This record gives sequence, structure tokens and C-alpha cells, in this order.
Amino acid sequence: MLNHEQWNGFTGGLWREEINVRDFIQKNYQPYEGDESFLAAPTDATNKLWGRLQELQKEERQKGGVLDMDVDIVSSLTSHGAGYIDESMKELETVVGLQTDKPLKRAFMPYGGIKMAEQACQNYGYEPSAKLHEIFTKYHKTHNQAVFDAYTPEIRRARHSHIITGLPDTYGRGRIVGDYRRVALYGIDQLIAFKEADKANVGIDGVMTDDVIRQREELTEQIRALQGMKEMAAIYGFDISQPAKDAREAVQWLYFGYLAAIKTQNGAAMSVGRISTFLDIYIERDLQNGTLTESEAQELIDHLVMKFRMVKFARITSYNELFSGDPVWATLEVAGIGMDGRSLVTKNDYRFLHTLENMGPAPEPNLTVLYSSALPENFKRYAAKISVTTSSIQYENDDVMKVEWGDDYSICCCVSATQTGKEMQFFGARANLAKCLLYAINGGVDEKSGEQIGPEYRGVTGDILDYDDVLQKFDRMMDWLAGLYVNTLNLIQYMHDKYYYEAAEMALIDTDVRRTFATGIAGFSHVVDSLSAIKYAKVKAIRNENGIVTDYETTGDFPRYGNDDERADEIAKWLLKSFLDKIKSRHTYRNSEPTTSILTITSNVVYGKYTGAMPDGREAWVPLSPGANPSYGAEQNGLLASLNSVAKLPYEWALDGISNTQSMTPEALGHNDEERSAQLVNVLDGYFDQGAHHLNVNVFGREKLLDAMEHPEKEEYANFTIRVSGYAVKFINLTREQQLDVIARTFHAHM
Amino acid sequence: MLNHEQWNGFTGGLWREEINVRDFIQKNYQPYEGDESFLAAPTDATNKLWGRLQELQKEERQKGGVLDMDVDIVSSLTSHGAGYIDESMKELETVVGLQTDKPLKRAFMPYGGIKMAEQACQNYGYEPSAKLHEIFTKYHKTHNQAVFDAYTPEIRRARHSHIITGLPDTYGRGRIVGDYRRVALYGIDQLIAFKEADKANVGIDGVMTDDVIRQREELTEQIRALQGMKEMAAIYGFDISQPAKDAREAVQWLYFGYLAAIKTQNGAAMSVGRISTFLDIYIERDLQNGTLTESEAQELIDHLVMKFRMVKFARITSYNELFSGDPVWATLEVAGIGMDGRSLVTKNDYRFLHTLENMGPAPEPNLTVLYSSALPENFKRYAAKISVTTSSIQYENDDVMKVEWGDDYSICCCVSATQTGKEMQFFGARANLAKCLLYAINGGVDEKSGEQIGPEYRGVTGDILDYDDVLQKFDRMMDWLAGLYVNTLNLIQYMHDKYYYEAAEMALIDTDVRRTFATGIAGFSHVVDSLSAIKYAKVKAIRNENGIVTDYETTGDFPRYGNDDERADEIAKWLLKSFLDKIKSRHTYRNSEPTTSILTITSNVVYGKYTGAMPDGREAWVPLSPGANPSYGAEQNGLLASLNSVAKLPYEWALDGISNTQSMTPEALGHNDEERSAQLVNVLDGYFDQGAHHLNVNVFGREKLLDAMEHPEKEEYANFTIRVSGYAVKFINLTREQQLDVIARTFHAHM
Repeated sequence: MLNHEQWNGFTGGLWREEINVRDFIQKNYQPYEGDESFLAAPTDATNKLWGRLQELQKEERQKGGVLDMDVDIVSSLTSHGAGYIDESMKELETVVGLQTDKPLKRAFMPYGGIKMAEQACQNYGYEPSAKLHEIFTKYHKTHNQAVFDAYTPEIRRARHSHIITGLPDTYGRGRIVGDYRRVALYGIDQLIAFKEADKANVGIDGVMTDDVIRQREELTEQIRALQGMKEMAAIYGFDISQPAKDAREAVQWLYFGYLAAIKTQNGAAMSVGRISTFLDIYIERDLQNGTLTESEAQELIDHLVMKFRMVKFARITSYNELFSGDPVWATLEVAGIGMDGRSLVTKNDYRFLHTLENMGPAPEPNLTVLYSSALPENFKRYAAKISVTTSSIQYENDDVMKVEWGDDYSICCCVSATQTGKEMQFFGARANLAKCLLYAINGGVDEKSGEQIGPEYRGVTGDILDYDDVLQKFDRMMDWLAGLYVNTLNLIQYMHDKYYYEAAEMALIDTDVRRTFATGIAGFSHVVDSLSAIKYAKVKAIRNENGIVTDYETTGDFPRYGNDDERADEIAKWLLKSFLDKIKSRHTYRNSEPTTSILTITSNVVYGKYTGAMPDGREAWVPLSPGANPSYGAEQNGLLASLNSVAKLPYEWALDGISNTQSMTPEALGHNDEERSAQLVNVLDGYFDQGAHHLNVNVFGREKLLDAMEHPEKEEYANFTIRVSGYAVKFINLTREQQLDVIARTFHAHM
Repeated sequence: MLNHEQWNGFTGGLWREEINVRDFIQKNYQPYEGDESFLAAPTDATNKLWGRLQELQKEERQKGGVLDMDVDIVSSLTSHGAGYIDESMKELETVVGLQTDKPLKRAFMPYGGIKMAEQACQNYGYEPSAKLHEIFTKYHKTHNQAVFDAYTPEIRRARHSHIITGLPDTYGRGRIVGDYRRVALYGIDQLIAFKEADKANVGIDGVMTDDVIRQREELTEQIRALQGMKEMAAIYGFDISQPAKDAREAVQWLYFGYLAAIKTQNGAAMSVGRISTFLDIYIERDLQNGTLTESEAQELIDHLVMKFRMVKFARITSYNELFSGDPVWATLEVAGIGMDGRSLVTKNDYRFLHTLENMGPAPEPNLTVLYSSALPENFKRYAAKISVTTSSIQYENDDVMKVEWGDDYSICCCVSATQTGKEMQFFGARANLAKCLLYAINGGVDEKSGEQIGPEYRGVTGDILDYDDVLQKFDRMMDWLAGLYVNTLNLIQYMHDKYYYEAAEMALIDTDVRRTFATGIAGFSHVVDSLSAIKYAKVKAIRNENGIVTDYETTGDFPRYGNDDERADEIAKWLLKSFLDKIKSRHTYRNSEPTTSILTITSNVVYGKYTGAMPDGREAWVPLSPGANPSYGAEQNGLLASLNSVAKLPYEWALDGISNTQSMTPEALGHNDEERSAQLVNVLDGYFDQGAHHLNVNVFGREKLLDAMEHPEKEEYANFTIRVSGYAVKFINLTREQQLDVIARTFHAHM
């Protein structure tokens, strides 16, 4: 059994014999049922640092979105000296560590793709290094180059025509959450010892297969990364070889673990994970020892959150169009219910939400409440209040996720759960099913380019679309798309492992890792409504001069998804299940478990740009509705009916997540914040008790958005944050196109 | 059907519809039954260039073995400008192209391992580049690093104790023979088109497995390499996109193919392959057109051979100890019999052998006669005469190889056949079975270090060794060794594919390639004789103070391998078959076909250094007998009895080759060269008709070697070449230790 003096006062358990952070949490945490009255205001240090950071953020915006960039240092664990928010007041920072040597300075990360790394520099007026160009074109192949080396012409066509989009083939795949808590609980030396022991066991049965060889090499890289983390911490004057001895060290050690991830990987989603309850244990011990005050505890959490608010990657214009507003999905969970029925809410869960009050709203970290109607009423109300006042948090249904992932999962992007420290995800963008339906109708011919992209299946021939005929053709085209999509992802994941392996993150995950293979659906509601239109109304195909169907005349009424109407909602369920089955029937890389999701983040706008008119009346080239959201304007029966429709989609069929984003006017919820909070809790309880998965809650009216769009300079909008599909964003940081899309969405003015 | 004006005059066939060089040869070559009287003397150009090259070689020797080295250019297809033997007479060179920009200047090749590349520089007083050090340690991992990342402690121990040795884990694995003739016959553009078509077909069944992904990436790299070859040729002023139009271009195009291999890979064996009959077709066409004279034809071959004589790699001291005298195994075959019974001997086969007369003996190219008693008598006699006068060629049995590999195989090292353009080999050094027998006796404890290296099986306990007991223990220890050995090779081959893929060579091999997995045996004769001693005589184990058996007292007589004695030779067959079966029962990388060999090259000296005393009377730490050779001093019944013993080993059980090296005094063969040639043909006919595989023929006495060792400065020894196990070497370039070993070998003074 392991023993460290840093563990004095902790209740023992299996966590002292193996790496088992969950067991540590279960044996040591104190559920908190009280209210928010204990919370402390920001300290002077917090105010000063946050003030300085806001100045830097303003400067960044004024400089066109990027404050500073590296061009001649390749980011690595030890590539940079120590950096602080402000050198002149660095002693105020209770949590230290930046991605580079300066705040908001973006690192140069070429391993995912040298082209994107260089373009990112050029987009912001920086000249990339000729030496690094030579190295990453002549000597070292990047992930991006390798992927394109292996792509088939068919994949390239599908990518180019945007029926498959958002593929992580030019940068990191992200979506891997290292168990950063391990650094604090065990210290690096112990983690290395465990990995060394694992390595000794890999291939012990004596058969050196490719899998064994790969894993042995990966473990060596992981151990190397752990050693690198120690060196990185030493640059800041810390020795993290041993366990953290108090809350301050625990926060710092844990953050170094996360910092290692973001120094070495630039995935779209670089989530933090489920750290709140864990850290509370250290804080409680210190509070009871009298070595920490509540104000100091809040300061620690505020400073940690400030660091998460600073995470940035160098991106290119087309990336920003897809994922607007510089999101990094530093997703961080609070709450949830343990397997034993005890609430996992601690004081620290309050502290994390309280950062939105102490430092105002912010998009990152992507604060996520793991919701259950069984959570303490005090906490539900407090979270709802924060939603009402900041629109900065999202809710995910712990009741359904716990069944699949246990009670120690983390969200690795916006809605995708993974067991913390036990699992990684092969992420892979999404298939545009709306476009797929159009391909079915046009026999694989792209409605935008007129090119044959899909297989030359027979298209629809008559004028009036026949439901059975279209359904059969769509089913077949989905078969093709699912196969191509999985193949594309297999190839990307293979190359990512080969050229851009996440050693630092995987070092903090069990060696015997579970792998999920995430796919995604775009255009969901439009397919549902279009099929419904074909079935229940009369849809006439309008052909252009080349005989390609490019528009539709729909006569008569038809049920739409988002109104709690079984006829439409049944089609929605059929669509999800059919697509999932087709994905599941394919070979997936490293025997990963296929899942799917209905989430599009802000990419619905770009996807829409490449998607023609639909039978449901959606015009050509306009944004698709995001995630699992009903189509804009489809919801005619209020918020609850809309939520009921989405709630019918079984989470079990979309284990990667079902994203729903709703905006309601303050008035719809009540006359004051107290009423509104209580009403929001009712809405959440009702929605999630039905088994729904996720809800982004925005509480504001269209007028505020219009004003913010026209007057971004107003002080009140500097930190005005909204929830878009899957993440939060400062509204003024969205492109105008994205802003218009958000404004076009439904604002529920009544329940 | 393909058509090129460069093919005018050639008989058509399948080779015009697919890549099929064999078909081209079969349809177009002219067997030659005449004698050597047509051969031409060296031209002035040849004499001048060879004279200059000899000066450079002398200078090289005077400088300690290396004339010049690159330190800051990484060798690639296009890394260097044009280089010539002598800039001032470059117009004399009818075949151009050097590994670097200067003759005998060694290239810097870090992909196999930066450490070895740097050490090689330092060994010869050159300072490696700091920039390249940074690139190949910080940004790009090398094969060597990757292999050591994945090695198990057990593998490291086995490697360190030298029970497994000569592993290609610090440089290229070599042993891949590109079909360089393809460049001449088809031109690069056509080759690219074929590879593009292959790439379009890989994964066409729609399942993107790891194998499909890997192959798609490899094909992309191959196509890139083909494009690089065109650029490389352009540096010398040649456009090799189209087929060669005449003999001169054919020789040049083919050589560019080979040059691409040696510019990008530094394997121990970088063989040229079977090019003689192929080139003869071009020469014959030109001779008949009147556009080429015999003298010009010979000049082309002389100049081509001169280039092969110049191939050098940067090596480190320990490598030179293993493979002494700078061998590169630029193995090149002549003769053989076609499937249709026609001899494949052409005038060109004479021309290649004649280079040893025109320019004197030389170790490279490693000239190999594919022997059959059915070869034209004129040719057999001429080859034998060259052996008698130069000791520079080896003989391999075409009758047995043809059954396995068809009639267009190439030798990829010294004795290992691969189907030209259809096959590649995963090469992998050898297992020291002599040491394995000692491990069996000592229960896995190393007799040199006293450390437990093998598994802790029960060792021999009594004083007198019991045959059945030792055999059972040896069998079990061989099981362990075979498993560990195959695992080690699997790992090395995996990493070589990943970090040091042979794109240029594989570009000239069929996409649907056959892969063999070559293993090897060291210490063969000593195991056989030791087991025989235990069985037929009385062997007493002598233990040291730690109880480890370190010596043996053998009383009584026992049969020895190499005397045509069934009792010993049966043990030899058992040993070979047992080891092969154990190798075959293992999983091998990429489903390659396991084979084994009995060849040790000059590594027998180093292997012996790490091998204790044996029951057969071999003293500790002295050289093992090389390859399949009987032990030094064992042969008591003359050359023929010795050959008979070796010939009993079925080639089918050692498809990677059975190497036998014999030295006979000129007097043993006859009174003059004519008698000696005739007698040697008799020996070869008799030996190979029994199914024996290989013979290195040396014709000289011990006195000459002793004199050469003591007086290397004598002019007559400057090019004095001898056949050692598997290759030829300039005797004065051997280490003294190696020279003493060669001198210690049996010299047959009678038949």
C-alpha cells in the first residue's frame, strides 16, 4: 500500500493501492446541501489580475483577435520560460503557468499540420519561421500531410463538397481529457512508476503483435511526457514529483497536468474534466486545519478559472468560421449524483459557478452542470440563478449519463461523456444528413456544384416525391455516407496516433484504455421535417436546366419536429437509430466503440452554406438548425413542447450527445431573478426527468442581441456571453454571420 | 497495350501490358553458348577512371578508412549536386551518379538512428551538425530511438549478452532489392502511372483497416520517391521519365534506380540484383544496329561496376568489427537457367565477370554465379577460371533456388533469394545457438557475465552430460530463444516501416508484395559437434566457483560435422529443422513468411567473443566457425567430404540460405589455371548436383595470407580479394582479428 505524508487526514481505500481517483473522492468528499451564503467575494489580487487580463483581452480584440504569436518556437512541455499575466505582479498569482512565455500569446503547433500553423501566423500578419518550415516539410511529416497522403479521391470529394465536414485533419483531434487530478493526488513519480509497471506487463504473454509494439512505444512516450511535466513545473519553481500537500498545491499540480495537454495539443476541444469535488476535499482539509480561509479558497478557484479563460490556440480563418469566437471547450463539470445516491455537490461546485459572479460571465471554462432533479434544491436554484444572470452555463443529464459512464465521467467537448482517466475518444466531426437526403433525391449529384459526388444510384424521377421511394433511396445513400465517413475517420485516427500522439494526456489515463469512436450528425431537424413533408404534405421537385432537383414546392401542412407531435418525432427517432446502426456495422479503428451525436456547435452556419433547399421549406445555403434543435420557426407550441420533442430521442442511441440550445426571454420565466430561477429549475426538472440529455440555457431577448451587434463597443457587452450549440461565447466575438444566425433562432417568450 | 518508340525492335508480350520484366527478358534475350574470346580489353577511359579511383581508395585507406564525410546534409534523392570520380575528366564517365557530391564521400543518414550517424562522424574525426542533432532528437524520432522505446528488458538483456546479435536497430535493415531494371524498361512516368492505379485499388472494397491505410500512405511515399528519382537524374542532366532508348541509357537509368536506394537507405546489404541478362538485350540491339561496339559495351559494364565498387556508408567501429572491410553487399547475379530450360547466360554475364580482369579483383559488386551443372560448359569454365585467379566470386545453386523463387530472383544479401520486383525481406540478424546450448546447460545463466539472461529453467546438475537430458533442455531453451528472437524482429520491422520506410526501393517492387521474414543461426557447427560429443564421447562439465559450467572435459572420439559422417550430419539436420519449426510457429509481422539461414558473414568472430567453451572442444571466446561451415579443424577427410556434409542440409529448411566458405590451395586443384578451372567445375558440379546451396571459393594458400597480413603495403595486395562468409573483401581491409580468423580456417590441400 502506498503511503505519503501529503495524504495525512485522508480516508484510505483502494486509491492507495492503485490509481483510482474516484475511490479517493468517494471515500473523502463531503456533500454540501447548504446555500451560497458562504461564498466569498473576489480578493484584491483577483480583481487586479482579472482587471489586467481584461485589458489584455481588449487589446487582443483591438489587434484583430490575436495579441501575440510565436513563430519560431515549437510548443512543447519545456519550450518556454515561465510566463505570468503580469510580470510586475506575478506574486499575486496563486496558480501559475501559461501556454507560452506571455499572456494570450499563441503557441506555434505544427505537428497537426504545418500548413495550418503557418497560415494562422500569416492570417494575423506574422511571418512563419523558414527553419521550422524546412523541418516540418522536409524531415518530419505532419498529421495533415499523412492524412492527405492516404485519403482516397472519394474522401476528398466528400470533404470538398462538405457532405462530411469539420474533420480533424489539419490540427489536433482533441476530445481527450487527461485525469489531471492524478498529478495532484499521486505526484509524477508515482504515476511514472505505475506506467512503468504497465509497460512491463504489455506483451507479457510473449506475442509481439503490432498492437503490443504500438502500446509499448506509446507507454514510453507517456513516461517521457510525465518526465517533461516535472521539468515544465520546475521552470515555474515547483517540484511536482510528489503528491500535492495542500489545496494550493493540489490546484497548481492539477493545472500543470492540464497545461501539459494544451502545450502539446491543439485539438478543437481541450476539456478540463471533473475536478470540482476532487479539489474540494483538499480545500476542506485545509479549512479544517485552519490553514486556508474561504476567501483564499475562492481565490484559488478564481485564479484557476482565470487560467482556463486564457487558453488560446492559433487558428485560421476557415476554422474561425466553423467554430466562432475562439472556443477551446475547456469544459469543466460540477454537481452530479454518486452511484450511492449521495449528491456530488460540494462547496467547490458553488465556488466554480461563483467565478461567473466574481469575474463576470465568460465563455471558458465551459461550465457544465451535471443535472438531476435529485440534486440539492439549493444548488439547483443557485445554478439556475447563474444561468438567468449570465447565460454562461449548460446542463447535462446525469441520470442518463451515469448509467453509461458511471459517476466519474468528464465531458470531453460539449456533450460527450468519457470516463475520467479510463477512456479516450476518437473524435470525428459530422456527416451532413440534410445533404445526404438531397443526394438521395439527385442520385449522388451535388446540388451545389452539379458534380457527381456520391455513388451513381438511381435518383428520384417523378415530380411529386413519394415517401417510400425517397426513404429507400435515402437509406441507401446513408449507407454509403456512413461507410465513407467511418473510413475517413479510421484513417484520420490512425494518422493522428502515428504523427500526433497525445502522450501527455494519455499519460494521465489508464493504460488499458476504453476507446470510443465518435461520429456526428448535422442537419438533423431538416431531414426529419423534410421526410415529414414528403409523407404528410405534397412535395414537388423543381429541377434546374440540368435536371438536378434544386428546389421544392411543398403544398399542405405537415407535422414538424419540435412540437411534441408523435408523427414527426417518430421520424426523428428512426433517423437517429438508422444512422447509428449504419455506423455500428463498420470496422472502427483500434476496435473502438462507435457512437454518434447530434451536435453541430456553430458549424451549422457553414454546413448550411453548402446545403441546398430542402423539402421542409428551408431555403438553400442558409444555416442549418444547430445540433438536435428543431428548425428555426418550426416550434409553434412553446418551449415545453419543443423540449418534449428533443427529449424523446433516446440518449442510448446518441451516447456522444444530443445538443439542444434554447433561448427564453427573462419575462417568459418570471418577473424577477428569483422567480425566474425557480421556474428554470422546474423546466430543467421536467425536461431531464424525461431522459433528455442536454440543454444550453440562454435568458435574454432578441433586442439585446441586436443592440450588442450594432454597439459592440458598449461596456456592458464586453463580457456578454451566450450559449451557442455546445459552448459559450462572447457574443461580440462572433462573426456577423454567426450573430445573425443566433438572432434568427427561436426566442421562447412563453413556456 | 503500352507503346514506346524506345521499344522498337523488342519482341512484345505481357510486359507491354503490365510491369513484367521477366516476361521482357524471356521474350527478348539471346542465350550465349560461346566462349570468352569476344571480350574486350578496358578502354582508355576505363583505365584512367579506375586508376583515379584506385588513387582515391589508397588515400581513403591512408586516412584511416574514410576519405570524406558529410556532416550537415541529410542524404536524400536530391540532397546533392552532381558528383564525378574526377571533375576534370567527367566526360569519360559513361555512367554517372554518386551518393554525394564527391567520390567516396560518405553521406549523413540519420533516419535509422541519429546516434550511429553521429558516432560514425566522430569515429573519423568529423563533428556532426548541431542543427541536425536537434532535428533528429527533438522533432523527428529515428528508427533506433523507436525500437529502444519498445524493447522489453528481456530483449535488451538478450541483445546485451549477444545471444541475439547483429540486429538492424541502429541503421537500415537493407535486404530489399528494388527492380532497378524497371526504370530502364518503363521510365519513371509509366511506373508512377502503375503505382497510381494500384493506389486507386487499395481499399476499394471499402474497409479502411490499418493495413489499407498503411498501404495507401506507403504508395504515396513510393510515388513521391519516383518523382524524386526524376529530379535526381535531372541534376545529372538526364530525363528518366521515359524508357531508356539504348544500352547506354538503359545502364544509366538502371543505375539511377539503384542510386536512389543507396541515397536513401543504409542497410547492411544493398544489393543490385539480377541485371545482367536484362542489360544484354539492350546491348545486343545496339550491337546489331551498329550503334555500339563490343569495346563500348564492355566499357559501359566496367563503368557501371566501377560505380558499384564505390558504394560506401558511414559506419561505426562496432559495426566494422561485425562486418569487416566496408561491405555493402551490392550483390549482382549472373547466369542461371530459365524455367524453359534455356540458359540465361548471355555475353553480358561474361562482361560482368570480365570486369575482374579489366579492373582487377574487387569485393564489390558481390558477384554471384547462379550455378547449375546444366550451364554452358564454356561459361562454367570461364567463371571457374575467374575464381581461380581472383577468389572474388561466389556460387549459388540455381537448381534448388529456381524451384522456390522462379527464374528471376535476386540475391538480397549474400545467399538470400527474393523474387525480383515481387518480394521484400524483413531481415533480422541471427540467434547464437551455440550460446543457447550453453544456456540450456546453465539454466539460462550467461557463461560470460554470470547473469541470469534466459529463463530460469532447470540446468544440468550432474558431472557427466547426458545426451537426452541436454537435448531436452536445449530444445526448451531454443523455444524461448526463437520466441524472443521473432518478437524482437517483429518490433524492429514494425518500427522500420514506421520510421525508415524504403520508399525508393519499394517503388520498384510490386504493390502486392510478398514478404519473407528472415532469421539466422550462428554457431551451427559447434552445436552439432557438441551434441555429437555428448552423445558419442564422454563430456564432463567443469564448474566455476559459482557453480556455472564454464568448461568441458571431453574424453573419447566422436563424429564431427564436415566429414560426411551420417551420425554428425543427422544432428545437423535435426538442429536446422527444430530451429526452423520453432520460428515458424510464431506470429510474424505483416504475415510475412518465416525462413531461416545459416550464415554469419564475418560476425562469427564477434559472436565467438561472447560464447564460452563448448563440449566440442572449441575454446571460450574464440571465433565460431562461419555460416554452415564445419568447425575449424573438424574436417579430416578432405574438401569433398566436407562439402558432402554441408550438402545434406536441405535448402528447403533454410530458404534464406546456407553459406559455405572454402579455401583450397591452387595445388589441390591442379598444376595450372586451366587444370584448376576444370577441376573446380567438377567440384561445383558434384557439390551442387547434391542439392547444396552455396559455395564461396578461395584459391590460395595460408602463406599468401600471412604475407599479406605482415606486408599490406605490397602492391600485389592492394586489391587482393578473398571470399569470407557471404561476401568478398580486400584482405588488407580486414581487422587483424578477422585476418587471424581467416588464416585459422581450413585450407584444403587435397580433394
